[in-house]
Amino acid sequence: MDYKTFAKRLETISAIPITAFHDDLSVNWDGVKENINFLMENKLEVVVPCGNTSEFYALSIDEAKEETKRVVEYVNGRALVVAGVGYAVPTAVELGNFAKEAGADAIMIHMPVHPYITSKGAANYFRSIIEQVDLPAIVYFKDPNVSDDVLKELAPLDKLVGVKYAINDLPRFTKLVREVPASHNVAWICGTAEKWAPYYWNAGAVGFTSGLVNILPSKSFELLEALRANNWEAAWDVWEHVLPFEDLRAKYNNGNNVVVIKEAMEAVGLTAGKTREPVAALNESDHAEVETLLETWGLKTTQNS
Amino acid sequence: MDYKTFAKRLETISAIPITAFHDDLSVNWDGVKENINFLMENKLEVVVPCGNTSEFYALSIDEAKEETKRVVEYVNGRALVVAGVGYAVPTAVELGNFAKEAGADAIMIHMPVHPYITSKGAANYFRSIIEQVDLPAIVYFKDPNVSDDVLKELAPLDKLVGVKYAINDLPRFTKLVREVPASHNVAWICGTAEKWAPYYWNAGAVGFTSGLVNILPSKSFELLEALRANNWEAAWDVWEHVLPFEDLRAKYNNGNNVVVIKEAMEAVGLTAGKTREPVAALNESDHAEVETLLETWGLKTTQNS
Repeated sequence: MDYKTFAKRLETISAIPITAFHDDLSVNWDGVKENINFLMENKLEVVVPCGNTSEFYALSIDEAKEETKRVVEYVNGRALVVAGVGYAVPTAVELGNFAKEAGADAIMIHMPVHPYITSKGAANYFRSIIEQVDLPAIVYFKDPNVSDDVLKELAPLDKLVGVKYAINDLPRFTKLVREVPASHNVAWICGTAEKWAPYYWNAGAVGFTSGLVNILPSKSFELLEALRANNWEAAWDVWEHVLPFEDLRAKYNNGNNVVVIKEAMEAVGLTAGKTREPVAALNESDHAEVETLLETWGLKTTQNS
Repeated sequence: MDYKTFAKRLETISAIPITAFHDDLSVNWDGVKENINFLMENKLEVVVPCGNTSEFYALSIDEAKEETKRVVEYVNGRALVVAGVGYAVPTAVELGNFAKEAGADAIMIHMPVHPYITSKGAANYFRSIIEQVDLPAIVYFKDPNVSDDVLKELAPLDKLVGVKYAINDLPRFTKLVREVPASHNVAWICGTAEKWAPYYWNAGAVGFTSGLVNILPSKSFELLEALRANNWEAAWDVWEHVLPFEDLRAKYNNGNNVVVIKEAMEAVGLTAGKTREPVAALNESDHAEVETLLETWGLKTTQNS
């Protein structure tokens, strides 16, 4: 598949799976498999193991590799697998080369976690990884202190097939999309999920990431279809329906992001398990809000709570 | 050495060494050795390999281990070695156990880089690592979104001998120091170096971290002595002397933090080499400012530039 064709295939929802854990916080691979099968049965076309919703930063390097390897196996050709890679350049390259060997279709390069980043240095960081890994690459861009010039500089690279933009400064995103020639291979993806997808879409995004798909994929697809059809009334209806869930995930500076999904999954009988440190279980009132939302959505009645 | 005694020995400057790189960005271990010997000749008493000034987040896990091992060898008992550890809990524990085997005296646990952190989860993160590594521990606390309750909860742990506090909210720091009983083993350390040390000191800090010691250790010690002697006129004089350098390091949301030190070291004939991605070389005007500062300090004349 050439890079242009690959970028076209990113014009959909990027599903970020969860990583299921046992009570002792070891990885529950049966749970991971169940989650991937759920996503496949619900027709997700792009799956991103080792994303933030997968708790990438709570996995050891070996666990991250194993997650990529197993997700490729579990997906078994039913969707594109885009493996998250990150940390120092040598570590990201190691993870990327492992992903290639394991049969992943592409890599998603996380924003560097280094406390000191210069814009020129960030461009060097992404380019170095893109050049050293023989797979199409998506750049996950989320640090507002780093200039968009980084992306303009990287855009001409053939292997850069997508940007997952996660800085909710819409005018900034709009300018960027308009300034990068459409002749490049970049698919613009809203990196902040359903809550922000409509705004990004209007400005040129062609897809969005989602953690919600792990529990309510039908609504994510309703939103995608509404956006594709330019049906804004339908889009805002779905948006309003899922907003309280996304707002609950955003609490505590996003501290709740993953644990809300996992506790909701458990509440409806899916396997997700605990959330690893530095995240703890929801407090009582937040957990009660999850239960209430699930009832609102018809996913859970008071009888089975 | 009991934990209380250990904490007393942290009442000084915590030197964060640089990691020297060759032009191809591989580690220059001879340069690392030269840097450690410079710190030892200048009587630094605490050395922290794998700190942020060491570009911990640009090192692979194996390189980080080797840095700790070699710094223990190079220091050779002349100072305490506090090894930085971080990333996911299993990775931090692996690095910590390696540090113990290599002969390090303590670990410094970096603030988790996970994008989602809850305060309860952060406490679990630090406690889990402290419990699993058989060494005294210092917690590096720098995320303003995480509650200080984390530190109040951890303070009673015997093995917690220090907190490197790096949130420049002085009233917040002052309240914290006053609320944690002095009977615990915690040495409070200003984690934001010479620029902020006087304010932290006044509020109860007993030491400060420093990257400046890699080039101008005499001034760092002048500041320490002035603070110890409660000689504020002398303290502010030193502060004013080093401020332009620290301000230059703070540029670009701290993007310049390490590269300013390294280019200054190179300019006066010390070995530091390049800075790894995601940091790039200084632009011309910032580099010129480094040269000017070095002249002001008498470290460099126009003749040897």
